[in-house]
Amino acid sequence: MSNDYNSPLLSLWKNHAADAWTRYTEHTFVEGLGDGSLDRSVFMQYLIQDYLFLLHYSRAWAMAVVKAENESEMRTSAAIMNALINEEIQLHIGVCEREGITVADLNAATEAVENLAYTRYAMDAALSGDLADLLAVLAPCMFGYGEIGLRLAAHRDNTTPLYREWIEAYCGDEYQAVCVATATLLETAVRHRLGDDPTLNPRWAGLCQRFVQATTLEADFWSMGFRLASDLEQA
Amino acid sequence: MSNDYNSPLLSLWKNHAADAWTRYTEHTFVEGLGDGSLDRSVFMQYLIQDYLFLLHYSRAWAMAVVKAENESEMRTSAAIMNALINEEIQLHIGVCEREGITVADLNAATEAVENLAYTRYAMDAALSGDLADLLAVLAPCMFGYGEIGLRLAAHRDNTTPLYREWIEAYCGDEYQAVCVATATLLETAVRHRLGDDPTLNPRWAGLCQRFVQATTLEADFWSMGFRLASDLEQA
Amino acid sequence: MSNDYNSPLLSLWKNHAADAWTRYTEHTFVEGLGDGSLDRSVFMQYLIQDYLFLLHYSRAWAMAVVKAENESEMRTSAAIMNALINEEIQLHIGVCEREGITVADLNAATEAVENLAYTRYAMDAALSGDLADLLAVLAPCMFGYGEIGLRLAAHRDNTTPLYREWIEAYCGDEYQAVCVATATLLETAVRHRLGDDPTLNPRWAGLCQRFVQATTLEADFWSMGFRLASDLEQA
Amino acid sequence: MSNDYNSPLLSLWKNHAADAWTRYTEHTFVEGLGDGSLDRSVFMQYLIQDYLFLLHYSRAWAMAVVKAENESEMRTSAAIMNALINEEIQLHIGVCEREGITVADLNAATEAVENLAYTRYAMDAALSGDLADLLAVLAPCMFGYGEIGLRLAAHRDNTTPLYREWIEAYCGDEYQAVCVATATLLETAVRHRLGDDPTLNPRWAGLCQRFVQATTLEADFWSMGFRLASDLEQA
Repeated sequence: MSNDYNSPLLSLWKNHAADAWTRYTEHTFVEGLGDGSLDRSVFMQYLIQDYLFLLHYSRAWAMAVVKAENESEMRTSAAIMNALINEEIQLHIGVCEREGITVADLNAATEAVENLAYTRYAMDAALSGDLADLLAVLAPCMFGYGEIGLRLAAHRDNTTPLYREWIEAYCGDEYQAVCVATATLLETAVRHRLGDDPTLNPRWAGLCQRFVQATTLEADFWSMGFRLASDLEQA
Repeated sequence: MSNDYNSPLLSLWKNHAADAWTRYTEHTFVEGLGDGSLDRSVFMQYLIQDYLFLLHYSRAWAMAVVKAENESEMRTSAAIMNALINEEIQLHIGVCEREGITVADLNAATEAVENLAYTRYAMDAALSGDLADLLAVLAPCMFGYGEIGLRLAAHRDNTTPLYREWIEAYCGDEYQAVCVATATLLETAVRHRLGDDPTLNPRWAGLCQRFVQATTLEADFWSMGFRLASDLEQA
Repeated sequence: MSNDYNSPLLSLWKNHAADAWTRYTEHTFVEGLGDGSLDRSVFMQYLIQDYLFLLHYSRAWAMAVVKAENESEMRTSAAIMNALINEEIQLHIGVCEREGITVADLNAATEAVENLAYTRYAMDAALSGDLADLLAVLAPCMFGYGEIGLRLAAHRDNTTPLYREWIEAYCGDEYQAVCVATATLLETAVRHRLGDDPTLNPRWAGLCQRFVQATTLEADFWSMGFRLASDLEQA
Repeated sequence: MSNDYNSPLLSLWKNHAADAWTRYTEHTFVEGLGDGSLDRSVFMQYLIQDYLFLLHYSRAWAMAVVKAENESEMRTSAAIMNALINEEIQLHIGVCEREGITVADLNAATEAVENLAYTRYAMDAALSGDLADLLAVLAPCMFGYGEIGLRLAAHRDNTTPLYREWIEAYCGDEYQAVCVATATLLETAVRHRLGDDPTLNPRWAGLCQRFVQATTLEADFWSMGFRLASDLEQA
């Protein structure tokens, strides 16, 4: 389905996080997007939280610029960050508005604890470590969505127009190109800091652990959609 | 029970967060500490997570030193931070060891999502704002434990030796003195940044929101003990 | 010459820093750009250091994204940062190459102490304070170059082609538009944090001091060109 | 004179920075401390700036706590930081007061550009890198003063009471013990991140460069004393 964007390090991390990666990329939420069975109210809760997520995910990519050690690392990180906050988030707001969620709703929304845990864990990885630590935490979101997009693309006619639009955003050339750029950054930045064979460096285990943690938090993020919709129903 | 350590700003924040403050300081977990009804397995799960919490809470206090704007702010923050990591955490490890939880167990423990959310939210408050933002997030833990300690102190003979020891740590002179020092820092640091009447400053609402958020995450932290013990039983 | 980009706060800061502002914007280096009397070797030393400066100035603007408190603050900061690192720096490299300074030369250059002092002071303002502190430090560079560009534009035919190109870059519509966007961000971000009349807030004096400090460091940056060219000659 | 506190990595860094290390540790200022020939007015200017330096050097050590990855790294960094801000700085203020420099004078002093460059470079090393990057910048100050103190100790009877007091502070057991603790932290923290032989890691060159940069800034700090005293005389 995916060649891991030609990043051997991404493949190693995914293998290390195998169970968590499956729980994340094959989550009930994801399968429901693919066959249209996902409850619309669950998706709406996800959309609102994902707007708040994108704000902090962009801040975390801004930290990648801060922590870059050369012009090339800076340029890639800056371009990704700018695309997230000045383009992707606008598309997101557009979808929300069309579905009846106004910008005011988005700004008034309460950040769910699952959202808080994931985004602030990323910010702290940036503060405590170097660019390799941060990329290990940014990777699951970026590449997982890319992989899910490509896998569901084959079946996009089975699902609803709303979910098809989501799938097309992530299997589309633009998003896939960002994945490729991130993979190149990941390969060079990690080897630049840990050596040609990063698995021999004492930091490798810590980076793997960060990747697993962020992957787990991604799976929790899907579950959050169900929880919030259920809470809302019971309220 | 408590005069809020002579801090009018703390009183305002607590009033603003009234419901969340009650959910936190009168949580089933807390009541169970006071009357001995708290399941030991729940307390053990809390103890393990609290060790991990203390590491990151100390890091957040180190950020207070980084963000201090004069020697006085630095000295108070530094002393609190040093006491947390070089004294309180040792007491904590001692209790754990006596109860059969080794240092190796503590270091091998997986950080619960409730723990992650709270501690990393504090670190990011430090990174994104100034010292006032950070103190609004550090306050609920510091003062809540102080208040709970004082309230339960009156009934400490009703509970088990283990829980009595916990109560005595937090109602004790040493911990209460740290609360007083933090209250003084809070009053001066917030007024130094927001003005003599901080409630008139546009940042006031944001600080109140941070205090509510951290208080909510404290309540979640108690609930986490029950969740983890229940997960363990089912495993 | 300039209406301070419709920013009353900028006018206040410039008035506060009046002497330093004159030393910066009417520095011998600047006058030499305007009448062509600036020694080419001095300008070359400046160009090399300015490349290194731009890398860190971009990092400081990335910190503005990190410290933004709403989508609007994020979007402006992100766009400026991306333009700096993915556009302006390329123009800069182009000029350097044409003048015989290769990318390898740029990367091998030693950062001068004047450069270090200014850029790292900006990064630390970001780390220690909030967005208002950071903007007070980013402002002198942004608006000073804009003001110098506009003033020298009238006389651009009196100078050499190389210096005319420099003048045209900074009096040009594109750069002036960035100044306008920064002024809007400055007005809203500072008032959002200090209140409608920021001069009544206790932080105002500190922000003025930061603006003076950064302005002084800008004047030192011009002097650095002369010092480095002189050191080189004596070597 | 010194066995580099049993730190092979410190020896490697010093060898790499050999010329800069000599310029720093055998600076005219240092020799003048040893034989009493240093002008008192130069020393007074140094004392004032060193107070401001200590505030930021303490902040940089607070960042070491933030960037620590285990309890042991945290505890050492926290203890050093707390000793700096809650003990050493008090001694410093005491000396200043006895010599006629009040706390008000200290707080009113303008930070010299050499001071700014060094301290903010340290803060940014903390923000951009990990603990190894930060320690490479903190090391020259800590170990250089320790080495100078030990070397001058032999001749302390040749100098004035004021300079003898300075020498005794740095050759004393207390300060030397902090050097030993820092050396242990350095050895373990760098190897923990770069591997058993850090010289084989791609980051090694960058750490050496940071050590040279900080050593150069230390030499500039001594020169600053002469410059400020001379500026004052001419004013």
